[in-house]
Amino acid sequence: MFEQITIIAPGLLGASLAMAVHQRSLAKRIAIQARRQEAVDALANKAWCQLATTDLAAATQDAEFVVICSPVDSIPKLAAQIAPLLTGKPIVTDVGSVKGEITRSCQASLASAARFVGSHPMAGSEKTGMQHADPDLFQDRTCFVTPNAETDPDALAKTTAFWRAIGSAVVSEAPDTHDEIVAHVSHLPHLLASALASFLAERRPDAATHCGKGLKDTTRIAAGDPALWRAIVSQNRHEIRRALDAFQDHLQTLSAALANEDDFILLQKLADGKAFRDKL
Amino acid sequence: MFEQITIIAPGLLGASLAMAVHQRSLAKRIAIQARRQEAVDALANKAWCQLATTDLAAATQDAEFVVICSPVDSIPKLAAQIAPLLTGKPIVTDVGSVKGEITRSCQASLASAARFVGSHPMAGSEKTGMQHADPDLFQDRTCFVTPNAETDPDALAKTTAFWRAIGSAVVSEAPDTHDEIVAHVSHLPHLLASALASFLAERRPDAATHCGKGLKDTTRIAAGDPALWRAIVSQNRHEIRRALDAFQDHLQTLSAALANEDDFILLQKLADGKAFRDKL
Repeated sequence: MFEQITIIAPGLLGASLAMAVHQRSLAKRIAIQARRQEAVDALANKAWCQLATTDLAAATQDAEFVVICSPVDSIPKLAAQIAPLLTGKPIVTDVGSVKGEITRSCQASLASAARFVGSHPMAGSEKTGMQHADPDLFQDRTCFVTPNAETDPDALAKTTAFWRAIGSAVVSEAPDTHDEIVAHVSHLPHLLASALASFLAERRPDAATHCGKGLKDTTRIAAGDPALWRAIVSQNRHEIRRALDAFQDHLQTLSAALANEDDFILLQKLADGKAFRDKL
Repeated sequence: MFEQITIIAPGLLGASLAMAVHQRSLAKRIAIQARRQEAVDALANKAWCQLATTDLAAATQDAEFVVICSPVDSIPKLAAQIAPLLTGKPIVTDVGSVKGEITRSCQASLASAARFVGSHPMAGSEKTGMQHADPDLFQDRTCFVTPNAETDPDALAKTTAFWRAIGSAVVSEAPDTHDEIVAHVSHLPHLLASALASFLAERRPDAATHCGKGLKDTTRIAAGDPALWRAIVSQNRHEIRRALDAFQDHLQTLSAALANEDDFILLQKLADGKAFRDKL
């Protein structure tokens, strides 16, 4: 239980987190900083927000635990902005889906002002915005925490306990290992879903009139915010390129099996895929 | 309303169809032929099955409308087997997800014995078997009917009316056009979902411990029956290869944009994908 939690950027993740913190009584006071006045207005009289403001200094004053919930490309900037405002060495964490660059940058800019611990709750959605917020968004989801040699052990323990209290299953990985994992299990799937959708947009613009549930599921995440994903790809470009290159080789094996009428390989790959999916 | 509908092969689709026919009173009598005695036993006392038998002759006797619901590679064989058993020129249709080869073969073997109309209800599932049957499986789904020059117009009209009565939205396309469309909107997505799953099985066998909802949705159809899909791919190999080749080129464009840090192309493709998905 914290005296005050400050959430920066009340989008889908930030607002859902505030609701979850309130529902589970994890802070006596929840302060939220939003960039736009309309967002501040929308927060008025919410039980899960005791202070809504556009002012970073007002929002972070007295915070014991700060969660930066902005898109990945704004996180380092916000960390640098709050550094001179913080007192009492609070814990600062974030919800960015890439961790290497963010961790290096936030640790450098927050330096002695705060104790940074990177987090990545895998709880996004193709929907964005406070209006879709849900206090159960993090329930039963994986949340990475990404300590490195510089991470304060007490801050790590408290951040881990926080996500567990929110209902997530916490996995601890070094920032760069995290980025390699999510390149495979999250960013590559996103790019493939998106590539399939943009391919069909060219070849089958009328697909909506004869598409089954399979295509809808396979491309669901392609409806995610393009700007958000461009920023994620841009921060994890190296690992995503490695994953995509390797996947293209893998797909070529399947393509060759199809061309060669090698149904043994084809059946084996289909069975490997099924075995993997059945375990998820 | 038919006097008797005969359903051959009560798997997920066949049994669901029998339930739907019963629920909507589309036949006075539903006869079902199953290969295995256990399936016949499982059909005993079902309100949606008046005759269950392993005997094709008994099942097809007096049928006005026969639906072959077996996997695609068995459909031509079953059509050839029932041809000498049929009387009164019934309508014969099927639920196979590939139509060119099946239509040519079924029209040839049924010849003067029956009036064949190819159908493809896009209502599969990664689940198989009678135990998952659902009378609403076809509700609000697309169903292709695939007439060609040889198709009897009255049989086509009755088959179309049948699927509409079952709750599906009927789309009429020539068999080969159908195969080209489904190569894009169904078979390619299946192969990609499967390829992603078999790729991750090699690279991230532990993915289940840190995977989000996105990966689960993107790979859901990869859990489909490998043997069933091998048969589908084998019957639609030509169109699937063309679709897969074109997709690989498309993916290479994205891969090059990533390598060249061309975020303009990347953002454009992400936006094209989102626009397409939002319409589904």
